[in-house]
Amino acid sequence: MSDRQTQILEAAVRVIAQDGVRGLRIEKVATAAGVSTALIYYHFKDRRGVVLAALAHIDHRAACYTDRTCAGADARRQVEEVLLLELQETEEVRENSIAWGELRASAVFNTDLREPLRVSTRSWTDYIESLIRQAQKENSVPAGVDAADAAERLTALVEGLSERWLSGSITLDRARRLLSGAVAAELG
Amino acid sequence: MSDRQTQILEAAVRVIAQDGVRGLRIEKVATAAGVSTALIYYHFKDRRGVVLAALAHIDHRAACYTDRTCAGADARRQVEEVLLLELQETEEVRENSIAWGELRASAVFNTDLREPLRVSTRSWTDYIESLIRQAQKENSVPAGVDAADAAERLTALVEGLSERWLSGSITLDRARRLLSGAVAAELG
Repeated sequence: MSDRQTQILEAAVRVIAQDGVRGLRIEKVATAAGVSTALIYYHFKDRRGVVLAALAHIDHRAACYTDRTCAGADARRQVEEVLLLELQETEEVRENSIAWGELRASAVFNTDLREPLRVSTRSWTDYIESLIRQAQKENSVPAGVDAADAAERLTALVEGLSERWLSGSITLDRARRLLSGAVAAELG
Repeated sequence: MSDRQTQILEAAVRVIAQDGVRGLRIEKVATAAGVSTALIYYHFKDRRGVVLAALAHIDHRAACYTDRTCAGADARRQVEEVLLLELQETEEVRENSIAWGELRASAVFNTDLREPLRVSTRSWTDYIESLIRQAQKENSVPAGVDAADAAERLTALVEGLSERWLSGSITLDRARRLLSGAVAAELG
Protein backbone atom coordinates (compact mmCIF):
# COMPACT_ATOMS: atom_id res chain seq x y z
CA MET A 1 0.00 0.00 0.00
CA SER A 2 1.34 3.43 -0.99
CA ASP A 3 1.73 6.29 1.49
CA ARG A 4 -1.07 8.06 -0.31
CA GLN A 5 -3.43 5.11 0.10
CA THR A 6 -2.54 4.85 3.78
CA GLN A 7 -3.21 8.57 4.17
CA ILE A 8 -6.67 8.14 2.61
CA LEU A 9 -7.51 5.20 4.89
CA GLU A 10 -6.30 7.03 8.01
CA ALA A 11 -8.68 9.83 7.02
CA ALA A 12 -11.51 7.36 6.35
CA VAL A 13 -11.15 5.81 9.82
CA ARG A 14 -11.11 9.29 11.35
CA VAL A 15 -14.26 10.31 9.49
CA ILE A 16 -16.05 7.07 10.48
CA ALA A 17 -15.05 7.67 14.12
CA GLN A 18 -16.45 11.21 13.93
CA ASP A 19 -19.65 10.77 11.95
CA GLY A 20 -20.34 7.06 11.79
CA VAL A 21 -20.13 4.85 8.76
CA ARG A 22 -23.67 5.51 7.55
CA GLY A 23 -22.97 9.18 7.01
CA LEU A 24 -19.64 8.55 5.28
CA ARG A 25 -19.16 10.82 2.27
CA ILE A 26 -16.21 10.49 -0.09
CA GLU A 27 -15.98 14.31 -0.22
CA LYS A 28 -15.40 14.42 3.52
CA VAL A 29 -12.70 11.73 3.38
CA ALA A 30 -11.03 13.65 0.54
CA THR A 31 -11.00 16.86 2.59
CA ALA A 32 -9.70 15.06 5.68
CA ALA A 33 -6.95 13.36 3.65
CA GLY A 34 -6.10 16.48 1.65
CA VAL A 35 -6.56 14.68 -1.68
CA SER A 36 -9.06 14.83 -4.55
CA THR A 37 -12.16 12.65 -4.61
CA ALA A 38 -10.92 11.38 -8.00
CA LEU A 39 -7.84 9.90 -6.36
CA ILE A 40 -10.01 8.10 -3.82
CA TYR A 41 -12.21 6.65 -6.59
CA TYR A 42 -9.05 5.67 -8.49
CA HIS A 43 -7.65 3.68 -5.55
CA PHE A 44 -10.82 2.31 -3.94
CA LYS A 45 -13.40 2.34 -6.75
CA ASP A 46 -16.45 3.45 -4.71
CA ARG A 47 -17.84 4.17 -1.25
CA ARG A 48 -18.09 0.45 -0.52
CA GLY A 49 -14.43 -0.02 -1.47
CA VAL A 50 -13.41 2.72 0.96
CA VAL A 51 -15.46 1.22 3.81
CA LEU A 52 -14.04 -2.29 3.27
CA ALA A 53 -10.48 -0.98 2.99
CA ALA A 54 -11.05 1.07 6.16
CA LEU A 55 -12.12 -2.12 7.98
CA ALA A 56 -8.90 -3.84 6.86
CA HIS A 57 -6.94 -0.76 7.92
CA ILE A 58 -8.49 -0.86 11.41
CA ASP A 59 -7.33 -4.47 11.71
CA HIS A 60 -3.87 -3.50 10.54
CA ARG A 61 -3.61 -0.63 13.05
CA ALA A 62 -4.75 -2.88 15.89
CA ALA A 63 -2.16 -5.49 14.90
CA CYS A 64 0.49 -2.75 14.95
CA TYR A 65 -0.22 -1.52 18.45
CA THR A 66 -0.43 -5.12 19.58
CA ASP A 67 3.00 -5.95 18.16
CA ARG A 68 4.59 -2.83 19.64
CA THR A 69 3.43 -3.64 23.14
CA CYS A 70 3.45 -7.37 23.63
CA ALA A 71 6.61 -8.81 22.16
CA GLY A 72 8.47 -10.87 24.73
CA ALA A 73 5.79 -11.26 27.42
CA ASP A 74 4.72 -14.80 28.35
CA ALA A 75 1.55 -15.97 26.59
CA ARG A 76 -0.78 -15.73 29.64
CA ARG A 77 0.19 -12.08 30.17
CA GLN A 78 -0.06 -11.42 26.45
CA VAL A 79 -3.71 -12.49 26.38
CA GLU A 80 -4.59 -9.89 28.99
CA GLU A 81 -2.34 -7.19 27.56
CA VAL A 82 -3.52 -7.62 23.99
CA LEU A 83 -7.17 -7.39 25.09
CA LEU A 84 -6.53 -4.39 27.34
CA LEU A 85 -4.91 -2.57 24.41
CA GLU A 86 -8.41 -2.16 22.96
CA LEU A 87 -9.46 -0.18 26.02
CA GLN A 88 -7.09 2.78 26.15
CA GLU A 89 -7.45 6.54 26.17
CA THR A 90 -5.28 7.27 23.15
CA GLU A 91 -6.58 8.93 20.02
CA GLU A 92 -5.58 5.98 17.85
CA VAL A 93 -7.34 3.36 19.99
CA ARG A 94 -10.44 5.48 20.58
CA GLU A 95 -10.74 6.12 16.85
CA ASN A 96 -10.21 2.46 16.05
CA SER A 97 -12.74 1.31 18.65
CA ILE A 98 -15.42 3.75 17.55
CA ALA A 99 -14.93 2.84 13.89
CA TRP A 100 -14.98 -0.89 14.66
CA GLY A 101 -18.17 -0.55 16.74
CA GLU A 102 -19.74 1.46 13.94
CA LEU A 103 -18.91 -1.18 11.34
CA ARG A 104 -20.35 -3.84 13.64
CA ALA A 105 -23.55 -1.84 14.21
CA SER A 106 -23.88 -1.04 10.51
CA ALA A 107 -23.50 -4.68 9.53
CA VAL A 108 -26.78 -5.39 11.35
CA PHE A 109 -28.49 -3.36 8.61
CA ASN A 110 -26.00 -3.66 5.75
CA THR A 111 -25.52 -7.30 4.77
CA ASP A 112 -22.63 -6.33 2.47
CA LEU A 113 -20.38 -5.71 5.45
CA ARG A 114 -21.11 -8.99 7.19
CA GLU A 115 -18.69 -11.36 5.52
CA PRO A 116 -15.56 -9.12 5.78
CA LEU A 117 -16.48 -8.33 9.38
CA ARG A 118 -16.96 -12.00 10.18
CA VAL A 119 -13.54 -12.78 8.72
CA SER A 120 -11.86 -9.95 10.70
CA THR A 121 -13.59 -11.07 13.89
CA ARG A 122 -12.54 -14.67 13.26
CA SER A 123 -8.92 -13.65 12.74
CA TRP A 124 -8.92 -11.70 16.03
CA THR A 125 -10.47 -14.55 18.04
CA ASP A 126 -8.12 -17.07 16.38
CA TYR A 127 -5.16 -14.98 17.47
CA ILE A 128 -6.36 -14.87 21.10
CA GLU A 129 -7.12 -18.58 20.96
CA SER A 130 -3.55 -19.30 19.78
CA LEU A 131 -2.14 -17.26 22.69
CA ILE A 132 -4.31 -19.22 25.14
CA ARG A 133 -3.11 -22.53 23.65
CA GLN A 134 0.48 -21.30 23.94
CA ALA A 135 -0.18 -20.40 27.60
CA GLN A 136 -1.54 -23.90 28.13
CA LYS A 137 1.73 -25.32 26.75
CA GLU A 138 3.60 -23.03 29.15
CA ASN A 139 1.35 -24.35 32.00
CA SER A 140 0.10 -20.87 32.91
CA VAL A 141 -3.47 -21.74 31.87
CA PRO A 142 -5.14 -25.03 32.92
CA ALA A 143 -5.40 -27.67 30.16
CA GLY A 144 -9.15 -27.99 30.85
CA VAL A 145 -9.92 -24.47 29.60
CA ASP A 146 -11.64 -24.48 26.18
CA ALA A 147 -9.34 -22.06 24.35
CA ALA A 148 -11.75 -21.38 21.46
CA ASP A 149 -14.71 -20.61 23.74
CA ALA A 150 -12.66 -18.46 26.10
CA ALA A 151 -11.16 -16.49 23.19
CA GLU A 152 -14.55 -15.85 21.62
CA ARG A 153 -16.07 -14.76 24.92
CA LEU A 154 -13.18 -12.49 25.86
CA THR A 155 -13.15 -10.71 22.51
CA ALA A 156 -16.97 -10.35 22.53
CA LEU A 157 -16.68 -8.94 26.05
CA VAL A 158 -14.07 -6.41 24.85
CA GLU A 159 -16.61 -5.25 22.24
CA GLY A 160 -19.40 -5.04 24.81
CA LEU A 161 -17.27 -3.13 27.33
CA SER A 162 -15.83 -0.90 24.62
CA GLU A 163 -19.30 0.17 23.48
CA ARG A 164 -20.33 0.86 27.07
CA TRP A 165 -17.23 2.96 27.56
CA LEU A 166 -17.60 4.89 24.29
CA SER A 167 -21.31 5.49 24.88
CA GLY A 168 -20.69 6.79 28.40
CA SER A 169 -22.29 3.99 30.45
CA ILE A 170 -19.06 3.08 32.30
CA THR A 171 -15.64 4.64 32.81
CA LEU A 172 -12.59 3.39 30.97
CA ASP A 173 -10.98 2.40 34.26
CA ARG A 174 -14.00 0.29 35.24
CA ALA A 175 -14.05 -1.36 31.79
CA ARG A 176 -10.36 -2.31 32.13
CA ARG A 177 -10.83 -3.75 35.62
CA LEU A 178 -13.83 -5.77 34.49
CA LEU A 179 -11.84 -7.14 31.56
CA SER A 180 -8.91 -8.16 33.77
CA GLY A 181 -11.40 -9.90 36.04
CA ALA A 182 -12.84 -11.77 33.06
CA VAL A 183 -9.39 -13.01 32.05
CA ALA A 184 -8.93 -14.32 35.59
CA ALA A 185 -12.40 -15.95 35.59
CA GLU A 186 -11.86 -17.57 32.17
CA LEU A 187 -8.23 -18.64 32.45
CA GLY A 188 -8.07 -19.48 36.15
CA MET B 1 -49.58 4.80 29.13
CA SER B 2 -52.58 4.66 26.78
CA ASP B 3 -53.05 1.92 24.19
CA ARG B 4 -52.44 4.54 21.53
CA GLN B 5 -49.12 5.57 23.05
CA THR B 6 -48.07 1.91 23.33
CA GLN B 7 -49.02 1.41 19.70
CA ILE B 8 -46.82 4.36 18.67
CA LEU B 9 -43.86 3.06 20.68
CA GLU B 10 -44.22 -0.47 19.29
CA ALA B 11 -44.03 1.10 15.85
CA ALA B 12 -41.02 3.25 16.85
CA VAL B 13 -39.08 0.19 18.06
CA ARG B 14 -39.96 -1.63 14.84
CA VAL B 15 -38.77 1.29 12.71
CA ILE B 16 -35.52 1.59 14.69
CA ALA B 17 -34.95 -2.15 14.28
CA GLN B 18 -35.50 -1.83 10.51
CA ASP B 19 -33.70 1.40 9.65
CA GLY B 20 -31.59 2.31 12.67
CA VAL B 21 -32.13 5.20 15.02
CA ARG B 22 -30.22 7.74 12.95
CA GLY B 23 -32.60 7.46 10.05
CA LEU B 24 -35.70 7.60 12.26
CA ARG B 25 -38.41 9.80 10.74
CA ILE B 26 -41.62 10.64 12.58
CA GLU B 27 -43.53 10.18 9.29
CA LYS B 28 -42.37 6.58 9.10
CA VAL B 29 -43.35 5.87 12.71
CA ALA B 30 -46.76 7.42 12.01
CA THR B 31 -47.29 5.17 8.97
CA ALA B 32 -46.12 2.08 10.88
CA ALA B 33 -48.42 2.90 13.80
CA GLY B 34 -51.36 3.93 11.60
CA VAL B 35 -51.70 7.31 13.30
CA SER B 36 -51.09 10.94 12.32
CA THR B 37 -47.73 12.63 12.88
CA ALA B 38 -49.65 15.28 14.87
CA LEU B 39 -50.69 12.65 17.41
CA ILE B 40 -47.06 11.56 17.81
CA TYR B 41 -45.94 15.16 18.38
CA TYR B 42 -48.82 15.60 20.82
CA HIS B 43 -47.74 12.62 22.96
CA PHE B 44 -43.95 12.77 22.61
CA LYS B 45 -43.18 16.39 21.69
CA ASP B 46 -40.40 15.75 19.16
CA ARG B 47 -38.09 13.18 17.59
CA ARG B 48 -35.93 13.09 20.70
CA GLY B 49 -39.01 12.41 22.85
CA VAL B 50 -39.92 9.47 20.64
CA VAL B 51 -36.40 8.00 20.79
CA LEU B 52 -36.19 8.32 24.59
CA ALA B 53 -39.68 6.83 25.05
CA ALA B 54 -38.71 4.00 22.67
CA LEU B 55 -35.67 3.25 24.86
CA ALA B 56 -37.92 3.05 27.93
CA HIS B 57 -40.33 0.85 25.96
CA ILE B 58 -37.52 -1.55 25.03
CA ASP B 59 -36.70 -1.88 28.73
CA HIS B 60 -40.35 -2.48 29.52
CA ARG B 61 -40.69 -5.18 26.86
CA ALA B 62 -37.54 -6.92 28.08
CA ALA B 63 -38.87 -6.85 31.65
CA CYS B 64 -42.12 -8.40 30.40
CA TYR B 65 -40.54 -11.35 28.64
CA THR B 66 -38.29 -11.80 31.64
CA ASP B 67 -41.24 -11.94 34.04
CA ARG B 68 -43.17 -14.34 31.82
CA THR B 69 -40.36 -16.85 31.72
CA CYS B 70 -38.53 -16.80 34.99
CA ALA B 71 -41.03 -16.74 37.81
CA GLY B 72 -40.41 -19.56 40.24
CA ALA B 73 -36.95 -20.72 39.16
CA ASP B 74 -34.17 -20.63 41.74
CA ALA B 75 -31.96 -17.55 41.54
CA ARG B 76 -28.90 -19.27 40.01
CA ARG B 77 -31.02 -20.61 37.14
CA GLN B 78 -32.78 -17.28 36.78
CA VAL B 79 -29.48 -15.49 36.11
CA GLU B 80 -28.78 -17.75 33.17
CA GLU B 81 -32.36 -17.81 31.91
CA VAL B 82 -32.83 -14.06 32.09
CA LEU B 83 -29.59 -13.47 30.16
CA LEU B 84 -30.41 -16.14 27.55
CA LEU B 85 -33.77 -14.46 26.94
CA GLU B 86 -31.87 -11.69 25.14
CA LEU B 87 -30.55 -14.22 22.62
CA GLN B 88 -33.65 -15.74 21.05
CA GLU B 89 -35.02 -16.06 17.53
CA THR B 90 -38.37 -14.41 18.13
CA GLU B 91 -39.47 -11.27 16.36
CA GLU B 92 -39.92 -9.40 19.64
CA VAL B 93 -36.45 -10.21 20.99
CA ARG B 94 -34.72 -9.64 17.66
CA GLU B 95 -36.40 -6.25 17.31
CA ASN B 96 -35.58 -5.32 20.87
CA SER B 97 -31.95 -6.39 20.53
CA ILE B 98 -31.40 -4.56 17.26
CA ALA B 99 -33.01 -1.39 18.62
CA TRP B 100 -31.01 -1.58 21.86
CA GLY B 101 -27.74 -2.07 19.94
CA GLU B 102 -28.63 0.85 17.69
CA LEU B 103 -29.30 3.14 20.65
CA ARG B 104 -25.99 2.05 22.19
CA ALA B 105 -24.10 2.69 18.93
CA SER B 106 -25.83 6.04 18.39
CA ALA B 107 -24.98 7.20 21.90
CA VAL B 108 -21.30 7.10 20.89
CA PHE B 109 -22.08 10.04 18.59
CA ASN B 110 -25.17 11.52 20.24
CA THR B 111 -24.38 12.64 23.80
CA ASP B 112 -28.08 13.32 24.43
CA LEU B 113 -28.80 9.60 24.59
CA ARG B 114 -26.02 8.77 27.02
CA GLU B 115 -27.62 9.49 30.37
CA PRO B 116 -30.91 7.62 29.76
CA LEU B 117 -28.93 4.72 28.29
CA ARG B 118 -26.59 4.67 31.29
CA VAL B 119 -29.59 4.56 33.64
CA SER B 120 -31.24 1.72 31.68
CA THR B 121 -27.98 -0.22 31.62
CA ARG B 122 -27.51 0.32 35.35
CA SER B 123 -31.00 -0.91 36.11
CA TRP B 124 -30.39 -4.09 34.06
CA THR B 125 -27.04 -4.85 35.72
CA ASP B 126 -28.52 -4.08 39.17
CA TYR B 127 -31.26 -6.61 38.52
CA ILE B 128 -28.75 -9.33 37.55
CA GLU B 129 -26.59 -8.41 40.53
CA SER B 130 -29.58 -8.83 42.86
CA LEU B 131 -30.26 -12.29 41.40
CA ILE B 132 -26.63 -13.28 41.96
CA ARG B 133 -26.79 -12.07 45.57
CA GLN B 134 -29.98 -14.05 46.05
CA ALA B 135 -28.24 -17.13 44.61
CA GLN B 136 -25.40 -16.56 47.07
CA LYS B 137 -27.94 -16.58 49.93
CA GLU B 138 -29.33 -19.84 48.51
CA ASN B 139 -25.74 -21.21 48.40
CA SER B 140 -25.88 -21.91 44.67
CA VAL B 141 -23.17 -19.32 43.93
CA PRO B 142 -19.96 -19.11 46.03
CA ALA B 143 -19.84 -16.22 48.50
CA GLY B 144 -16.47 -15.15 47.08
CA VAL B 145 -17.96 -14.14 43.69
CA ASP B 146 -18.14 -10.35 43.26
CA ALA B 147 -21.81 -10.02 42.30
CA ALA B 148 -21.51 -6.47 40.90
CA ASP B 149 -18.52 -7.31 38.68
CA ALA B 150 -20.02 -10.58 37.47
CA ALA B 151 -23.34 -8.88 36.65
CA GLU B 152 -21.69 -6.09 34.72
CA ARG B 153 -19.50 -8.50 32.75
CA LEU B 154 -22.33 -10.89 31.93
CA THR B 155 -24.63 -8.14 30.68
CA ALA B 156 -21.80 -6.54 28.65
CA LEU B 157 -21.07 -9.97 27.19
CA VAL B 158 -24.74 -10.35 26.22
CA GLU B 159 -24.44 -7.07 24.31
CA GLY B 160 -21.21 -8.17 22.63
CA LEU B 161 -22.59 -11.58 21.65
CA SER B 162 -25.89 -10.08 20.56
CA GLU B 163 -24.16 -7.68 18.16
CA ARG B 164 -22.06 -10.52 16.75
CA TRP B 165 -25.19 -12.58 16.22
CA LEU B 166 -27.20 -9.75 14.66
CA SER B 167 -24.30 -8.72 12.40
CA GLY B 168 -23.79 -12.30 11.20
CA SER B 169 -20.40 -13.08 12.78
CA ILE B 170 -21.70 -16.01 14.86
CA THR B 171 -24.82 -18.16 14.94
CA LEU B 172 -27.47 -17.70 17.59
CA ASP B 173 -26.82 -21.21 18.88
CA ARG B 174 -23.10 -20.48 19.32
CA ALA B 175 -23.88 -17.19 21.09
CA ARG B 176 -26.20 -18.97 23.53
CA ARG B 177 -23.66 -21.70 24.27
CA LEU B 178 -20.91 -19.12 24.86
CA LEU B 179 -23.18 -17.22 27.24
CA SER B 180 -24.04 -20.34 29.24
CA GLY B 181 -20.31 -21.05 29.49
CA ALA B 182 -19.70 -17.54 30.78
CA VAL B 183 -22.30 -17.99 33.51
CA ALA B 184 -20.51 -21.17 34.55
CA ALA B 185 -17.08 -19.45 34.47
CA GLU B 186 -18.32 -16.45 36.46
CA LEU B 187 -20.57 -18.14 39.02
CA GLY B 188 -18.67 -21.39 39.49
